[in-house]
Amino acid sequence: MTDLLHPRDLASTRVLRYPGAPDAPLTLDTWQDAPHNRWAFSHVEQIVPTVPIPRRRDTHPTREVGGLLRDLSGIEQRLVDSYTDALVVRTRDGIVGEYYRDGVTVDSRHLLMSVSKSICGLVIGVLVDRGLVDPAERVSTYVPDLHDSAYGDARIQHVLDMTVDVDYDEDYRNPASHVQKQDRVAGWRPRADTDPEDTYAFLASLSGGGSHGEVFRYCSAGTDVLAWVVENVTGCRYADAVSSLLWSRLGAAHDALITVDRGGFAFANGGMACTARDLSRVGMLMLDGGEIDGDRIVSAEWVRRTIEGADPELARGSILQNVHPQGAYSNQWWVTGSGEVYAIGIHGQYIWVDLAAGVVITKFSAWPEAVTEEWNRVHAELFREISAAAHA
Amino acid sequence: MTDLLHPRDLASTRVLRYPGAPDAPLTLDTWQDAPHNRWAFSHVEQIVPTVPIPRRRDTHPTREVGGLLRDLSGIEQRLVDSYTDALVVRTRDGIVGEYYRDGVTVDSRHLLMSVSKSICGLVIGVLVDRGLVDPAERVSTYVPDLHDSAYGDARIQHVLDMTVDVDYDEDYRNPASHVQKQDRVAGWRPRADTDPEDTYAFLASLSGGGSHGEVFRYCSAGTDVLAWVVENVTGCRYADAVSSLLWSRLGAAHDALITVDRGGFAFANGGMACTARDLSRVGMLMLDGGEIDGDRIVSAEWVRRTIEGADPELARGSILQNVHPQGAYSNQWWVTGSGEVYAIGIHGQYIWVDLAAGVVITKFSAWPEAVTEEWNRVHAELFREISAAAHA
Repeated sequence: MTDLLHPRDLASTRVLRYPGAPDAPLTLDTWQDAPHNRWAFSHVEQIVPTVPIPRRRDTHPTREVGGLLRDLSGIEQRLVDSYTDALVVRTRDGIVGEYYRDGVTVDSRHLLMSVSKSICGLVIGVLVDRGLVDPAERVSTYVPDLHDSAYGDARIQHVLDMTVDVDYDEDYRNPASHVQKQDRVAGWRPRADTDPEDTYAFLASLSGGGSHGEVFRYCSAGTDVLAWVVENVTGCRYADAVSSLLWSRLGAAHDALITVDRGGFAFANGGMACTARDLSRVGMLMLDGGEIDGDRIVSAEWVRRTIEGADPELARGSILQNVHPQGAYSNQWWVTGSGEVYAIGIHGQYIWVDLAAGVVITKFSAWPEAVTEEWNRVHAELFREISAAAHA
Repeated sequence: MTDLLHPRDLASTRVLRYPGAPDAPLTLDTWQDAPHNRWAFSHVEQIVPTVPIPRRRDTHPTREVGGLLRDLSGIEQRLVDSYTDALVVRTRDGIVGEYYRDGVTVDSRHLLMSVSKSICGLVIGVLVDRGLVDPAERVSTYVPDLHDSAYGDARIQHVLDMTVDVDYDEDYRNPASHVQKQDRVAGWRPRADTDPEDTYAFLASLSGGGSHGEVFRYCSAGTDVLAWVVENVTGCRYADAVSSLLWSRLGAAHDALITVDRGGFAFANGGMACTARDLSRVGMLMLDGGEIDGDRIVSAEWVRRTIEGADPELARGSILQNVHPQGAYSNQWWVTGSGEVYAIGIHGQYIWVDLAAGVVITKFSAWPEAVTEEWNRVHAELFREISAAAHA
């Protein structure tokens, strides 16, 4: 763990904190003033929205299918019809096909939505491998501030598998839902006066029934609980930990990004952005048992448990099983029960891993709908056809 | 100009606009919804603050002076005492010395404050070279929306040299000042209810006396007027134009960043951030008459006019001349009158170019004060000593 710098206690973080931060809060009112400006001037993108000024102009042809995709009849129209922004198909031989719509390039970082969760799952895996997190331990052991919340007595494994008994309304269209309130706290929507101060406070406010491990309940907040565990265990902000433990070891061509709330808390459950090519390297980890280019990132045991440990019984009645009858959720990944493991984010973000065929497909989209059973079905079919072609 | 994509009319932009944007505004309420999500998912850093997840971990030793700086007696203490975050000394032979305080690295992008202005000046220079901007033309020719403002009848050259007759209070500590209001509109401070909708509206609201070209009046808003000219002339958002015309041609090792307001307008007068090494390449352009590594970026004529065209008479009585008695401001650069040209930003950001010695010094700092005569004096002395050593 020598690569993890600046250990500090983040358990009671309620303002934008950073190594050496004074007690007075860094806010939009104070960041330009001493002593905050020492840190803020090198981290302005965490305070104010920014736009990159690229050091090179893209010359990659857009709106074009390449590689094997060219040979798939009607593929371009299917990609257009499914609001595709980018698609990358990779095997152990490298990228075998890709597509970018006009305006999106190989260098474009696209929002991952809940694919971010699956990346957090791998980061927890690395910490479990290193003996720093025990999946059987209670959340409150690592995050005392969550002791009185729904998560306090849940096991880390319950959070990983989303079987925590928590009252959380994941209705993306309802302004009164928990998920919209969390969006507001994360800075993704305008704040309401009564909203909690930051994501830490929001998570601590969630209540539940205490019967964990019995039913799969999809709940975005759980991933942010895991990110809080990551921060407290490593002493790093979540983004630094993801970089140290995963992103910097992946051979990524670009930095990834993650959105932060006004307390500096990274939106672990949905706020990551990266390129389609870099994301396909995350898929390779799942395909190759935690290795990429011969380097081990996470243990084969963790990947195996993720794929084989999923319990479809817990997900009975979920819409997932309308498409994948033996589907389940495990360690922040979806398992189809028919040889694939995948990550999915609303509006059509995917890492699809066909384990037998040895094919990884990443897709970025902008569906008008957040999620529908039909989109899930259409994409499972699409990916299986592409995978069969790539494997052939 | 084939490298400038997506021409469109931005003159009446009042909401976050992008190529193909619908009439309904993209706001923090709507960016996740169709049709905005098609653009927003690939540009999330313009909507919500973000933090990078680096693809590589820095291994550069920090808090250490290297190269010729090591031989300068007492230099480290002087750098610490002047709140230095980073310092790079470059000659035509390359980097000859550098310093980074703990927590800042060769890969850190630091806020440039008003050094951003000097970069905008060079971008205008490229457009003048290409015949797309005429410095003698009135601002309203390029930006009709500014017709009724203080800038309407000013010449582009007046704006470049900050001799526009505009009512603008540049008091950084006064909440009632124009500069703080502009900060609020730019997203750098919390909005007030009565603030203009965005930077475009703010600029159009500025009034003045109409007597341009007579007195040097430092005014940050002028650079944003120039950025608006850049947008209307190129049909690109400012960040894209800076990339096309300058940053992508500079051999920069990293993308730069610039903060954006809620209308997507880049804060041209102060919001850029880049690494100290990349910034030193901007200084090389001034040193080598518009060329770097043998590539011409801006004409020798533009650089010559910037350095030689400065008129100290216009700056009589300014605090600049307390330190540099023959100092003047020209094309968004400061000229000392004794063989140096420089860019400066509040709290201690610098590009210092010693033309005779052939030395470029970039310095990032976080002074507690925005600007003082004493800091300017201390830094002129410091840079002259370093330059003499580098030249020796």
